[in-house]
Amino acid sequence: MNERKKSGIIIIGDEVLSGKTLDTNSNFISSHLIKRGVDVKEISIIPDNEDEIVQKILHFSKRFDYVFTTGGIGPTHDDITCKSIAKAFKRKLVQSFKAKKLLEKHYGIENLSSSRLKMSYFPEGYKLIQNPVSVAPGFNIKNVYVFPGVPKILEVMFYEFIDKLLQIKIFPQKVISTSLPESSISDFIENIQKANSDVKIGSYPYFKNQNFGVSLVIKSEDKKKLNKVSNEIFNYLLNNNGNPKLF
Amino acid sequence: MNERKKSGIIIIGDEVLSGKTLDTNSNFISSHLIKRGVDVKEISIIPDNEDEIVQKILHFSKRFDYVFTTGGIGPTHDDITCKSIAKAFKRKLVQSFKAKKLLEKHYGIENLSSSRLKMSYFPEGYKLIQNPVSVAPGFNIKNVYVFPGVPKILEVMFYEFIDKLLQIKIFPQKVISTSLPESSISDFIENIQKANSDVKIGSYPYFKNQNFGVSLVIKSEDKKKLNKVSNEIFNYLLNNNGNPKLF
Repeated sequence: MNERKKSGIIIIGDEVLSGKTLDTNSNFISSHLIKRGVDVKEISIIPDNEDEIVQKILHFSKRFDYVFTTGGIGPTHDDITCKSIAKAFKRKLVQSFKAKKLLEKHYGIENLSSSRLKMSYFPEGYKLIQNPVSVAPGFNIKNVYVFPGVPKILEVMFYEFIDKLLQIKIFPQKVISTSLPESSISDFIENIQKANSDVKIGSYPYFKNQNFGVSLVIKSEDKKKLNKVSNEIFNYLLNNNGNPKLF
Repeated sequence: MNERKKSGIIIIGDEVLSGKTLDTNSNFISSHLIKRGVDVKEISIIPDNEDEIVQKILHFSKRFDYVFTTGGIGPTHDDITCKSIAKAFKRKLVQSFKAKKLLEKHYGIENLSSSRLKMSYFPEGYKLIQNPVSVAPGFNIKNVYVFPGVPKILEVMFYEFIDKLLQIKIFPQKVISTSLPESSISDFIENIQKANSDVKIGSYPYFKNQNFGVSLVIKSEDKKKLNKVSNEIFNYLLNNNGNPKLF
């Protein structure tokens, strides 16, 4: 049984903290990581502020196997993720000839302003992450993987990138929904959880068409135990008018 | 000029970290706080894990004027937010007679299982936060305000509650969109930002119908300066074929 890896996600951007922009990047990244045997242990949304980026990068980089960031690597004055990460790891910024060539080709040499050129500088020791949409690359340094914040760009880049880093490894799970309210099944679930410590049971209430119900997510690396516990839960719900559905 | 208050939001739930559930609660809370003179300085998404909840609550409670949490206050075994907050503040859990009465009325005394009764216990010194949807209350202790995770319930509760805590106080702002790419206006924006330190200019690229563009959010408590800077930006974009629109 392989140990699952741990990761953290840092979303960088004042626009998310102000409520102007709904963050969907962390959800996108999480759902791809979980299929590859990597659990996300914490997601942190922080402002475009050098000190806070430095602290969070150092903290997450120590705690987790992988750290993913989105946001703050564009050309504008408030894009300070790259220089903050360089500061965190005490690396100087160096120009990537390859990134510069890509930007020249994309914008035309005559339009390569100093702010656009900023996007060709990375902390020393970087590896580029390809950007098939808007050219300006992301990068990797140590265990930190740095992506832009625009979801359409992040998603394409991450999708292309992640298969190179991590192979898909599905953590076996079953999902059972029931029309019973969470509070009426929680004693049963608590007992079955206690009796099966190597199976993880999550209980997630939902609210749809004026009705409450619960989705139960049952996970285990041991398929036999997973099936046993899922069957017990399904039968209990069936015998208690819980209208269970297995997904 | 009043000092703006600082807040942090803690989203508690394995289902968000796994990518199963998209967190919209922090966005909802942020957008209500900002109108009331409260800036959100950090949003943290953490698992249903006692140690992590204790640490994060203590850390945020010290750093910020207000802390808001969502998730983990239901009846099931993985709902451990309440007891973790009690542990963080070294308070014992005490039963609220009022909450118990509400739950009795809602479920019927005969259906008040031990797991449902759990929802009538709070850390000593609590104040209840009313729940008009599914009855089980949230609570406030010290500067921490605790809400459930189901968005439909959180939203109603928060909406009813927040007006009692904080009056609306709009931070004057203008939004200007342009069809120019971020990299072609960033030198200009950087200079105008440097020249006007008491105005805050955020630059947010968007991607729509195969086109890129930028939304500029300009904020200041000084309305005259806000208008001056907004006019300068608008005219610059107009003179550079940026097709500006003012919102």
